[in-house]
Amino acid sequence: MRLHVPTPLRWSDLDAYGHVNNARMLSLLEEARIQAFWVSAEADENAAGASTAVLDATPGADTVTLIARQEVEYLAPIPYQRQPLDIELWIGHMGGASLEVCYEVFSPLGVEPRVLYTRAVTTIVLVDSATERPRRIDDREREAWQPYLGDPIVFRRR
Amino acid sequence: MRLHVPTPLRWSDLDAYGHVNNARMLSLLEEARIQAFWVSAEADENAAGASTAVLDATPGADTVTLIARQEVEYLAPIPYQRQPLDIELWIGHMGGASLEVCYEVFSPLGVEPRVLYTRAVTTIVLVDSATERPRRIDDREREAWQPYLGDPIVFRRR
Amino acid sequence: MRLHVPTPLRWSDLDAYGHVNNARMLSLLEEARIQAFWVSAEADENAAGASTAVLDATPGADTVTLIARQEVEYLAPIPYQRQPLDIELWIGHMGGASLEVCYEVFSPLGVEPRVLYTRAVTTIVLVDSATERPRRIDDREREAWQPYLGDPIVFRRR
Amino acid sequence: MRLHVPTPLRWSDLDAYGHVNNARMLSLLEEARIQAFWVSAEADENAAGASTAVLDATPGADTVTLIARQEVEYLAPIPYQRQPLDIELWIGHMGGASLEVCYEVFSPLGVEPRVLYTRAVTTIVLVDSATERPRRIDDREREAWQPYLGDPIVFRRR
Repeated sequence: MRLHVPTPLRWSDLDAYGHVNNARMLSLLEEARIQAFWVSAEADENAAGASTAVLDATPGADTVTLIARQEVEYLAPIPYQRQPLDIELWIGHMGGASLEVCYEVFSPLGVEPRVLYTRAVTTIVLVDSATERPRRIDDREREAWQPYLGDPIVFRRR
Repeated sequence: MRLHVPTPLRWSDLDAYGHVNNARMLSLLEEARIQAFWVSAEADENAAGASTAVLDATPGADTVTLIARQEVEYLAPIPYQRQPLDIELWIGHMGGASLEVCYEVFSPLGVEPRVLYTRAVTTIVLVDSATERPRRIDDREREAWQPYLGDPIVFRRR
Repeated sequence: MRLHVPTPLRWSDLDAYGHVNNARMLSLLEEARIQAFWVSAEADENAAGASTAVLDATPGADTVTLIARQEVEYLAPIPYQRQPLDIELWIGHMGGASLEVCYEVFSPLGVEPRVLYTRAVTTIVLVDSATERPRRIDDREREAWQPYLGDPIVFRRR
Repeated sequence: MRLHVPTPLRWSDLDAYGHVNNARMLSLLEEARIQAFWVSAEADENAAGASTAVLDATPGADTVTLIARQEVEYLAPIPYQRQPLDIELWIGHMGGASLEVCYEVFSPLGVEPRVLYTRAVTTIVLVDSATERPRRIDDREREAWQPYLGDPIVFRRR
């Protein structure tokens, strides 16, 4: 099963070429990931659904999420558009203390033809704030994320 | 009359102090302004209402909008929150070739107590792309923006 | 007396119009200000000279610097260029717990003709991290900054 | 042979965790890459040396550089520091119309012990502005870049 996270662009995401900047894309993926996985005090408003949002990784919390690795394929340039991008998000692998979040970034819902702009994967390590060492994914997290396990992305260029 | 432009935050808007960065606030105002004033091919989805969106200032268009001046008062630090900020937006002055856009940035709609985070004004000059000189606000623009004329902001610190 | 802080651009400072973005300019001013005023463990490398750098406002320090107000006039568009901008920086006013930092942003040193791109002022309030209340500028700070007191900027558009 | 591109940080590169943000790292790599490969009107000031800077890919030029793929490993968090990061940069592969730029991001020159913060690779495709199709790396470019060909990065996590 995949989450669909509507992710709005800003005009300032464009660079001098007039398309969404390649580095800024990772900020969009970061935002989609936070919407999907982070506990929110305002969980009812969480567009991505509350069920996966079990990770309290806000500054000051017990867990820090470290980004260990990212891989991104840019398939088509992205123009500024007002409707949010449709970012599909799932988990390609769940390890002991880490997980791989996979993304496919599509044109806004309802816009035809549907365009796949970007595919990416982020490896996240859960780190205990106190010990600063990796900590295991706990049972509640594992249970919440299990339904979103899917095939990892096979990248075209490698 | 004021426009209400719901403007979502991103976690990456925070700086190392854990609040929305002072420079990034101007990107949020920029986005609200674009939502409000720029012609959109997808006008029906325009959260700010289509009536003020008569300015075609996208790259390649006949008009370029130059920012001549900005003034911002930061009244309270802004934490990350999932619901969009409620940016009120109106026109404090309409000149020959320029206009002053005024903003009050509030906490998300429905959150109590309502907090006024920031007040700001942006002076925009309309520039003809071909001649690179200021061009007059035309009748259609003036008519569309007239209902949103209001008192300019009186800043506390000056 | 004015400080000269060489401040490098990045290509990513440009927006879709191909010039340094208006909001990003405030990040450049922020960086120049930090170079000038913040204590550095590597003070010898401080391009702006070590004498004004007496403020320990890094996260975790006793003082937090809050931005209370900014005013910016954009006089000419700024293209990408490899040599650092020459940001002149001085103090327009020193109050009890606040100071006004003034900036004039010029084209790189040695490039002719010299262009004044931007003028700006930032009002900074020193806040005690523990009490979260403004704290007075202390004697050491006042002494260090005194030589850089100068006339406040008179903005053209107001 | 590797290029060494000194790349200054900004305080605004930090995120709410107080370290250089993972997405922002790609802007730093972008800037190092531009310093190294783009033709500059001010070539004498090019910190990376003028010899590799043969690519005129500024907006309006005959060539657009598209980013097709990026892979990044984050090995250690990066604090704010005033001295520029030491980014080593070489070419892992030169194809017909594309090249793979490899990076190792180190702590500033002279700081001991030397820390390897990040390793990354970017696949760039040269695109003809007029036809919008990939164009071959020409002889002058190939000759300029040949000395910087080296072994591609072998990533630890895959």
